[in-house]
Amino acid sequence: MSSNFSSSGQQKAARWHPPSYDIRVETIPIPEIQHPDDVIVKVKLAALCGSDLHIYRGTGGVDKLHTCGHEFIGEVVAVGSSYGKEAAGRPALYSKLKVGDKVVSPFTSNCGECHVCRLGYTARCPKGALFGSPALEGGQAQYVRVPTAGGTLYNLSDSSTWSSALPKEVKEQALTGLSDSSLLMLADILPTGVFAATQAINHPKVAPVITGRPWPLCFNEAGTIDTGNEVSFTDEDKILTVAIVGLGPVGVCAAISLLDTLATRNIPFRIVAIDPLESRREKMKVVYDTLSTSLERVVARKEKVKDCTSGVGATAVLEVVGNNSALTLSYELVRAFGVIVSVGVHGDPPFPLVGRQLYNKNVSLDFGRCPARAMFPPAFDLLVKRQDIFGTVGQPANLIDRIVSLDDAAESYRAFDKGEVGKTIFDPWM
Amino acid sequence: MSSNFSSSGQQKAARWHPPSYDIRVETIPIPEIQHPDDVIVKVKLAALCGSDLHIYRGTGGVDKLHTCGHEFIGEVVAVGSSYGKEAAGRPALYSKLKVGDKVVSPFTSNCGECHVCRLGYTARCPKGALFGSPALEGGQAQYVRVPTAGGTLYNLSDSSTWSSALPKEVKEQALTGLSDSSLLMLADILPTGVFAATQAINHPKVAPVITGRPWPLCFNEAGTIDTGNEVSFTDEDKILTVAIVGLGPVGVCAAISLLDTLATRNIPFRIVAIDPLESRREKMKVVYDTLSTSLERVVARKEKVKDCTSGVGATAVLEVVGNNSALTLSYELVRAFGVIVSVGVHGDPPFPLVGRQLYNKNVSLDFGRCPARAMFPPAFDLLVKRQDIFGTVGQPANLIDRIVSLDDAAESYRAFDKGEVGKTIFDPWM
Repeated sequence: MSSNFSSSGQQKAARWHPPSYDIRVETIPIPEIQHPDDVIVKVKLAALCGSDLHIYRGTGGVDKLHTCGHEFIGEVVAVGSSYGKEAAGRPALYSKLKVGDKVVSPFTSNCGECHVCRLGYTARCPKGALFGSPALEGGQAQYVRVPTAGGTLYNLSDSSTWSSALPKEVKEQALTGLSDSSLLMLADILPTGVFAATQAINHPKVAPVITGRPWPLCFNEAGTIDTGNEVSFTDEDKILTVAIVGLGPVGVCAAISLLDTLATRNIPFRIVAIDPLESRREKMKVVYDTLSTSLERVVARKEKVKDCTSGVGATAVLEVVGNNSALTLSYELVRAFGVIVSVGVHGDPPFPLVGRQLYNKNVSLDFGRCPARAMFPPAFDLLVKRQDIFGTVGQPANLIDRIVSLDDAAESYRAFDKGEVGKTIFDPWM
Repeated sequence: MSSNFSSSGQQKAARWHPPSYDIRVETIPIPEIQHPDDVIVKVKLAALCGSDLHIYRGTGGVDKLHTCGHEFIGEVVAVGSSYGKEAAGRPALYSKLKVGDKVVSPFTSNCGECHVCRLGYTARCPKGALFGSPALEGGQAQYVRVPTAGGTLYNLSDSSTWSSALPKEVKEQALTGLSDSSLLMLADILPTGVFAATQAINHPKVAPVITGRPWPLCFNEAGTIDTGNEVSFTDEDKILTVAIVGLGPVGVCAAISLLDTLATRNIPFRIVAIDPLESRREKMKVVYDTLSTSLERVVARKEKVKDCTSGVGATAVLEVVGNNSALTLSYELVRAFGVIVSVGVHGDPPFPLVGRQLYNKNVSLDFGRCPARAMFPPAFDLLVKRQDIFGTVGQPANLIDRIVSLDDAAESYRAFDKGEVGKTIFDPWM
């Protein structure tokens, strides 16, 4: 254990009080190890996320006082008895994680060793929980307890425990070269953006454009089926049109991930990024300029998609908002035989579409929470690659609006909820 | 043109009269060529399909008198002026199709040469229409007009215009060896079953089980990402569990396609086939026995899925019914991070799920009509391969219940609607 850490002390934490709109910075006990797999993390930075607003507004379906926040990075200051010894058959971190390690956490915990985690569906681990909910105290505090930490955390101090396609020397540089605010993007928004893009690119309804071969020949290795009656694709047929509905930080990350993947794989694309807020559209334009790809990119208030596809619509729509008006717009924008990938957090209002609409347009829908721990490898590689965007707060394309003291949590939630400020980071030691 | 065919004559046709439950066999004019791309087909056999019942019952959203039926095979007896000459850049059939050719039609017409058709999404061709609807007279008649026939039809007389993975000699045998009742399965039910299975097998949420690598590494070529922290899959993790909701002929075809693909690719699977009707479950058991695969297959009334997956649920659910109770059951059966593939025809009742349910379970949904023309290649190959099932009416595993005269159409619709008879074929010359 770290010599300068005592779990018997007190700490500051931003706490949500029911029923709504009530955030208080309070002094509470520092969390303690409760289970051999737990670790305690001293929080270096924690961020405010759009999905925090569901609970803030009282529409999150919860009513219990708790510490807020599901995006944080920090340093391990105490470990449970599982750590520091052989852990055969368990993820490597259950033996290797130690006091002093710098870590980033996904926004949900996961054990890393059950059936669900083995398949990479870490966001739905039966042992897991969302940080900053009644089920698990959050990271907008000075210290946070991380359960099943050997499955949950990404150890930024030991590249041998990463999953990454990066060369060894790039990994080594990344250990020291990345800013904390940049690494904080890994907790939620960057993997969630990559998750949205990954689902779209790998969806069977998108396969003809990706492979250049019609449905269902796109699923066969080239040449196994003689294409007797088919006509060759035109250049326009080969363009993947993707609409992004919602240009908050996750929507921008989805665009960055899409552009990077499609440009790398040399797939022609057209991305139409849509948001009603001018400030968000302006940020998207700056990010586009930074990425400097030569392909078609449009930022619009809405509904430019049909204009630039001769009325066909988008092959994929990324819905990054999480309400019925975004879903309805996505349905209007998607082509027949297209896919809507929704990573927004949805609530309980009646679904805005009926079965006949979905059947008549042959629409696919992908819902759900990003398995952020599983998405770390591609998200981390993208973070390293795009330091021109993620690296430094204040760079024109950077997604962080401000870094403030945790003491300002109540006012920050209020202003964030009103749209007066963008992505906000708390420094609990400022 | 055929010497024994005159388009100025009269024919028998089964006609739907609004508002509901009113089928009459009437004498009407033989259809004529209306457009250079049309052909007239003399119908050899036409089938009754579960989805005919939407219009029959008056719930199909249409109110215009028309000839019924969207499943038929026959012989070309007249061709428009497009045919018999060079048709550069068009599908081969626009030049090669000729009087006397034996053809099978998909249940919707499609031009074969627009953007939508080139991508293989033939069921949503902007020029296309559903046979047996107010938009296009159907095939439960002695003759039927097929628009854009060079894109629509599959020429069973000329294997050079097929798309198929079959060796040349097998194709040649198929030209003469397949029964008409067997070929009629290509019009709708077999490609729709293959469509359901294909969507499930190629869905990104199913990829970990198919590839044996976790999300999202399942999308990378092996070895590009070092899997530092992951734990190996168990044997159970590698089993693909699929539930099929609805064991009508399409559901059985979906099961056959799944079993064939998964066995061929050596992917361990567990198929749970569900229907409330004992007669359908019994048919499914006979088909299973005929397929004689060694892997786990269960036929059940419902909800055996969780028992045999330790409560996890099915990775994919094929919903082959098309109503809200089937959708709701599919949601109950599907695992977190699973996919529901719906090929049933859905109507206008409010959607039975809300966004929070879909988000909380990370569910994907694929809706829509089979692009039957595009699915002909794998469906045809499966038809040839599984003649033990599809070949002969009266074989225990065959999906056809009876062949009757078109004169019996009204009584057949009544009995089919009541569930008193199964898949029924009309011979309009009997």
